[in-house]
Amino acid sequence: MTRERATATAPPSVGNVAVGFDVLGHALDSCGDTVTVTRNTSGRVRILEISGLDLALPLDADANTAGRAVIALLESCPRGTGFDVSITKGIALGSGMGGSAASSVAAVVAANATLETPCGIGTLYRAAVQGESAASGSAHGDNVAPSLLGGLVIAPREGDPVAVPVPAWLHAAVVRPHFALETRASRAVLGEPYPLHAFVEQSEALALTLAGCFTSDARLMRRGLRDVLVEPRRAHLIPGFAKVKSAALDCEALGASISGGGPSVFGWFESRASAERAAIAMREAFRASGIESSAVVSAVAAPGARVIA
Amino acid sequence: MTRERATATAPPSVGNVAVGFDVLGHALDSCGDTVTVTRNTSGRVRILEISGLDLALPLDADANTAGRAVIALLESCPRGTGFDVSITKGIALGSGMGGSAASSVAAVVAANATLETPCGIGTLYRAAVQGESAASGSAHGDNVAPSLLGGLVIAPREGDPVAVPVPAWLHAAVVRPHFALETRASRAVLGEPYPLHAFVEQSEALALTLAGCFTSDARLMRRGLRDVLVEPRRAHLIPGFAKVKSAALDCEALGASISGGGPSVFGWFESRASAERAAIAMREAFRASGIESSAVVSAVAAPGARVIA
Repeated sequence: MTRERATATAPPSVGNVAVGFDVLGHALDSCGDTVTVTRNTSGRVRILEISGLDLALPLDADANTAGRAVIALLESCPRGTGFDVSITKGIALGSGMGGSAASSVAAVVAANATLETPCGIGTLYRAAVQGESAASGSAHGDNVAPSLLGGLVIAPREGDPVAVPVPAWLHAAVVRPHFALETRASRAVLGEPYPLHAFVEQSEALALTLAGCFTSDARLMRRGLRDVLVEPRRAHLIPGFAKVKSAALDCEALGASISGGGPSVFGWFESRASAERAAIAMREAFRASGIESSAVVSAVAAPGARVIA
Repeated sequence: MTRERATATAPPSVGNVAVGFDVLGHALDSCGDTVTVTRNTSGRVRILEISGLDLALPLDADANTAGRAVIALLESCPRGTGFDVSITKGIALGSGMGGSAASSVAAVVAANATLETPCGIGTLYRAAVQGESAASGSAHGDNVAPSLLGGLVIAPREGDPVAVPVPAWLHAAVVRPHFALETRASRAVLGEPYPLHAFVEQSEALALTLAGCFTSDARLMRRGLRDVLVEPRRAHLIPGFAKVKSAALDCEALGASISGGGPSVFGWFESRASAERAAIAMREAFRASGIESSAVVSAVAAPGARVIA
């Protein structure tokens, strides 16, 4: 039996993960975005309400990430299907923790739960990526894929996302300074061309990190988890970044870098206890730059989106 | 008991492997380079003889890849150690099949076999990379690492190489056109800077291919095995390349590209039989461009260097 109304929640996520710009992301076990949809026969998508952290989001469905994602999903629904959408934001916008992606994912997962013939993961993924592009101005799935599937995920431009197994001991600390960085602004600094050697170094980092994940080898992750490509161009957008990163590394991070487009900073650790210690030190480092912050500590193998009502 | 004299052979290899420029390579089960060394107390390295395919190589030890590799190894040998080196080339130079790397690897493996306290793999790797730089003008280990270890290997700029497991069914066809392409010439076309989106596409390709290797998933390899970064800049150096690549793909290659700096062309296949069929078609495609060629078909999990006497 299908229902006309469903609510889904989708978690925040760390995009890029230092080694996989626009390609790799992982979920965070923390308060996400929640979307309730009601299916109708209007053939249209309406945003009824946005509540929670950010109230300044567009109610025009085509300009709203969740709205645009559900519009994209309509192509895979019976003719005449429409949805009314209510969004509760749990993730701060402009934080680099995949808030736009989570709204898109929660919306398509909720809408899908009302369909007689549900769509597959690949269809939900592509619809949510289209939704997120409303916010970022470019279609990339490195937040959508982990928010949808959970865990660490390769987010390809075509075809289904690919889960990467990670050991249960692997934990992330993500510290969010209390100011917003627009995804568009964060992407604007990346325009200039890059020398080939930077890409060779970054490919090596990606290969070592993935090898570490597939073989549960922390030493390989430690050799690999770094960003020589994008981090140097974005670091100046985050006051105190160098100190916060150093604080993570001083607490035995396997690596630390910018979460998504920033300004959040993440590190990977060999245990939850290490990640928790590091989160405190990273917040102190932000405070030394006069910036308040909050922290999330989560297994990298965190759950993805789910229907909750 | 140590011996004063040892002979080692090291196999050819496919560098870059489409998705890992300067980072990834795999061995080929085919005739390699063979080096005999005699240990002495001269504190110096001499090249006594070069035989086999290429007779125009430098006898000056510091200008010769094998010579320079053994010179680099001296740092890890007891003071006063010297070596006389004789090289038999089995791999055509300028073929893109890692001939310089194989000479370097065979030399350090043979020299190591004469030491009372043999060096570890990491030391041999770094010495052989230094040797290969005599030929290519840049230090990269994507041929050295697989020629040394066998199989598919991540070749980092620092630290030990990292083996990537590959399924036993995975086979390569490598077709070598009968003309040489200098590594230096092949690298000269790569100078111009690259746009970030090319890196993103290529990172995705690397991630999917590695995921395919770690999980024995041919579909993932097929999604990943491509080169949008370097192949477009080098393809024009290889007459008939597009046709040869098409021939491989028409024979169900998982992907096909340039082997190392070229001009050899390789493809990956789901069975030895497919690879053998493709090798014939790829040679025919070269012939249609008026170019004779020869082919190697090998498991990707091919053996590395070994002491033979």
